[in-house]
Amino acid sequence: MDKVKVIEIKQSVFAANDKQADELRSELKEKGIFLLNLMSSPGAGKTTTLRATIAALKDEFKIGVMEADIDSDVDAKRIAETGAKAIQLHTGGMCHLDAGMTRQGLEGLGTGDVELAILENVGNLVCPAEFDTGASKNAMILSVPEGEDKPLKYPLMFSVCDVVLINKIDVLPYFDFNLEKCVEYIRMRNPAATVIPICAKTGEGIDVWADWLRGEVNAWRNK
Amino acid sequence: MDKVKVIEIKQSVFAANDKQADELRSELKEKGIFLLNLMSSPGAGKTTTLRATIAALKDEFKIGVMEADIDSDVDAKRIAETGAKAIQLHTGGMCHLDAGMTRQGLEGLGTGDVELAILENVGNLVCPAEFDTGASKNAMILSVPEGEDKPLKYPLMFSVCDVVLINKIDVLPYFDFNLEKCVEYIRMRNPAATVIPICAKTGEGIDVWADWLRGEVNAWRNK
Repeated sequence: MDKVKVIEIKQSVFAANDKQADELRSELKEKGIFLLNLMSSPGAGKTTTLRATIAALKDEFKIGVMEADIDSDVDAKRIAETGAKAIQLHTGGMCHLDAGMTRQGLEGLGTGDVELAILENVGNLVCPAEFDTGASKNAMILSVPEGEDKPLKYPLMFSVCDVVLINKIDVLPYFDFNLEKCVEYIRMRNPAATVIPICAKTGEGIDVWADWLRGEVNAWRNK
Repeated sequence: MDKVKVIEIKQSVFAANDKQADELRSELKEKGIFLLNLMSSPGAGKTTTLRATIAALKDEFKIGVMEADIDSDVDAKRIAETGAKAIQLHTGGMCHLDAGMTRQGLEGLGTGDVELAILENVGNLVCPAEFDTGASKNAMILSVPEGEDKPLKYPLMFSVCDVVLINKIDVLPYFDFNLEKCVEYIRMRNPAATVIPICAKTGEGIDVWADWLRGEVNAWRNK
């Protein structure tokens, strides 16, 4: 359509924290701790997915979870109910976690008895994608109600992820969401990403996701 | 629950742009232009709501829309289809718009023939709340699938809004979403905010929202 005018606004430069992230990653590798960074929009189902993930893998790995939020500790409480070690990180208004904050979080969590550490990042499709947290792998959740076009609008988030979980597939009949089209858009941003449809609420697909995560943790430890 | 540990992470200070925003607001007031800043999570239904809003008010006000996105111009195209004046703003990775960027957007849009200018902010519940765009009023959309607890987790967003639209009420039967509880949480953050349940897709509640917006535009012009 010709009538749409596009204006580019100059990007501010974000401070790079790549070095700190690489150092943290090396230290975690030495200690045998796999760190998963889980990102999504607000309300896409990160905490519910984590509860299902913990239920699936708690007999295989010692799991510790850091719940990052601007405010409230509802998520850490929901995770603690599963029996997993959990702490709440308050970012004090910050829209993302960087490697330094993640290090603080891990120190607070205490990693002596943790094999699989999971960081639930702030609900946000923009800022968390810009900061390497030092994670072994990045995962993101896109939920059906958000729409299939999100990879077009938030390109960086989809390009930095190793795996994309498409959550809330139980409500597919009630939304105009084309799963095939969505996978095609994800592939445009990231041809290598694994895509797994799930429903964290009903448990559908959680076995596939748990298999993927188990494989990655074991590969990381034996690397 | 006693076992949840909370760690506070020091907040970085964001550059204040309040002065620029106040200047822009005064200029717009002189020109008789009402600027609405519309915010929400990704996929909460900003563009669909705007299409319904334009349909309801296009015979009363000359409307111009600025669609802000990291990338893509799908939203501006969808707005242009309504016949309203529309431009796409690319933020180049930025997670929000500030007053300076909004001014650039208004210059790009051309406001000579606009009475009601609408800024569709970047889909994000954190950063856009921190920057005054110079808008006459702030609106936000919370969609049912995101969950009723969002005011607990994103306090600033809910406190800066004059009106909260609760969208996608057509899918209430398929989600664990307590509307009463949600309104209670919104009131905790912002006792003065108007709360309007809508379904942008079916048009439910759009008349109430259009009435609110019409009232605000007319009050602004006569102030």
